[in-house]
Amino acid sequence: MQSMDPPGPNVESRGRASDACHEAPAGIATVFAPRDADFETRVRASFAQLTLMKTIGAHLRRIAPGEVEIELAFREDLTQHHGYIAAAILTAIVDIACGYAAMTLMPAGMSVLTVEYKVNFLAPARAERFLAVGRVTRPGRTLTVCSGEVVGIDPDGRQSLALMLGTMMAVPEDRTPNR
Amino acid sequence: MQSMDPPGPNVESRGRASDACHEAPAGIATVFAPRDADFETRVRASFAQLTLMKTIGAHLRRIAPGEVEIELAFREDLTQHHGYIAAAILTAIVDIACGYAAMTLMPAGMSVLTVEYKVNFLAPARAERFLAVGRVTRPGRTLTVCSGEVVGIDPDGRQSLALMLGTMMAVPEDRTPNR
Amino acid sequence: MQSMDPPGPNVESRGRASDACHEAPAGIATVFAPRDADFETRVRASFAQLTLMKTIGAHLRRIAPGEVEIELAFREDLTQHHGYIAAAILTAIVDIACGYAAMTLMPAGMSVLTVEYKVNFLAPARAERFLAVGRVTRPGRTLTVCSGEVVGIDPDGRQSLALMLGTMMAVPEDRTPNR
Amino acid sequence: MQSMDPPGPNVESRGRASDACHEAPAGIATVFAPRDADFETRVRASFAQLTLMKTIGAHLRRIAPGEVEIELAFREDLTQHHGYIAAAILTAIVDIACGYAAMTLMPAGMSVLTVEYKVNFLAPARAERFLAVGRVTRPGRTLTVCSGEVVGIDPDGRQSLALMLGTMMAVPEDRTPNR
Repeated sequence: MQSMDPPGPNVESRGRASDACHEAPAGIATVFAPRDADFETRVRASFAQLTLMKTIGAHLRRIAPGEVEIELAFREDLTQHHGYIAAAILTAIVDIACGYAAMTLMPAGMSVLTVEYKVNFLAPARAERFLAVGRVTRPGRTLTVCSGEVVGIDPDGRQSLALMLGTMMAVPEDRTPNR
Repeated sequence: MQSMDPPGPNVESRGRASDACHEAPAGIATVFAPRDADFETRVRASFAQLTLMKTIGAHLRRIAPGEVEIELAFREDLTQHHGYIAAAILTAIVDIACGYAAMTLMPAGMSVLTVEYKVNFLAPARAERFLAVGRVTRPGRTLTVCSGEVVGIDPDGRQSLALMLGTMMAVPEDRTPNR
Repeated sequence: MQSMDPPGPNVESRGRASDACHEAPAGIATVFAPRDADFETRVRASFAQLTLMKTIGAHLRRIAPGEVEIELAFREDLTQHHGYIAAAILTAIVDIACGYAAMTLMPAGMSVLTVEYKVNFLAPARAERFLAVGRVTRPGRTLTVCSGEVVGIDPDGRQSLALMLGTMMAVPEDRTPNR
Repeated sequence: MQSMDPPGPNVESRGRASDACHEAPAGIATVFAPRDADFETRVRASFAQLTLMKTIGAHLRRIAPGEVEIELAFREDLTQHHGYIAAAILTAIVDIACGYAAMTLMPAGMSVLTVEYKVNFLAPARAERFLAVGRVTRPGRTLTVCSGEVVGIDPDGRQSLALMLGTMMAVPEDRTPNR
């Protein structure tokens, strides 16, 4: 069986990877056109309602069509039994980055929900700060597939800590579950 | 290609599902024998070091060979933009439940780390409290496969909110990354 | 973020696990009512078009509301480099079992597509025959979450070989991609 | 909890993405050094034993340290109910590409097994031929994390059809399960 949710009308070029970046998967090099010029405003307004992001001290860093970055500083109260940032906290910031990356390509009046995600953890999460990057790899009318990565950033370098592959769903804001 | 990490010596009966429960997957009905009689003490000591669990107010409810339950009460500071408990918080408690379920079957001196997980979200997380159940479906010397579920509990009933399928890894405590 | 695709009207009882089966996840014990009495006919007609299933010699064994079983006999031409049935062949039969499990609960005129799946491999696939069981754990109007398992069956017993957790999507048959 | 399988000694530079490719995840731009100069010979010898690959007509196209490509031509006998290549066949070729990508970085005498994978399907698999690319994103002594993609190739262009994120395991060849 196979997915065929029709792609949204915002895919401008697909798989036009430049020669310089020929190693990148086709989806990653895609250029997206937002369907709502106010996408950044909408994402910022929605993020402001995410109580969990306030609780852990994460903030929005960059919002572009199909790509969102979230940053988090190391905090002792978010660690697991070895003193590193817990897997679920890395998951939290990369889930939000992916969800809003999907939302940047949705028309006005649509909100985003996480259908599912898969995360691989690559290294212990010890760093001064953590950058979660969420990217749309395939936008659809209903479902959007996103890839995410969490990178640990220290004065002496960066390290990839986690990779996500997940599915986001567009829902009309007036059909969201709190109504 | 195919996994063949040798199973640990603690699998007593495999797939001995009773007739009454013939619908259950073979793995779920498996009965496990712990290799370290002090498994509960080890799990409780490790859980006490999980700062994130304190931060969100989660606690251990039940520890049995191959199965651990974690409970969390609803809290406003853990919600997403629709007012429900954020996906990553459900993920946090079911990851910990699965990780410790794996640890109950490991020999003394071994600690557990999450290799990867996949979570499907089934319904909005609105409930008075949340019960995460982690179960070993296949223990191995190095890798243990676990299934998890988060159930929302209200005075009027229960609802399944999330399902996890993930891989845990045994590591000697003296090789853990903070040394 | 969190999924909230409205559940279909066919969920009769949710999480009514009997005492005898209290270990089973809430979703697994759910009883489903088909919305189209001809669900078995539809599934058999669709399966008959699956060229790949013919190619590998798999056949439908059982079709019930929310649950489908597919069987495959061991064949040398489906193996990997150690002589066992390849991971992707186990995936093929459990994907089809899950997809049709979802289809049994859909109204007439709807077809099913795989959005995504995750599979853990538990043991080498050496057995006389293989039974893939797909079960709906959460039906929805658009998306259905399924759990699957592949069991190896030999004269002397059964062994769980693979677990799947995946997402299926309902699409109107007249919007399927080959039109 | 969090993974910390020690990385293998073959990571030369990590996350040294060039400016031109700054969008690429850190892992993808990593340059790997093979530990066994004969990695290509070993991969070709192992691939020659994959009966399933012969059955479906897939062949190795490119083998580089940490990256392997497999190609498959469209065939009617590999399709699902809408006439496209079945999801599990795309999964088969990208699983093998990822598995051998991992094997290129392993020392002599080691074989590779799939622990688990997750695949998202992005578009119907209709194309003249299909290219599966598997890449190591994080090599480890025991576990290697890989990302894969299947691209459909037609005279008029390319389209990304599926994305994989999975875990491979190194096992000594003399401990493989057929002994």
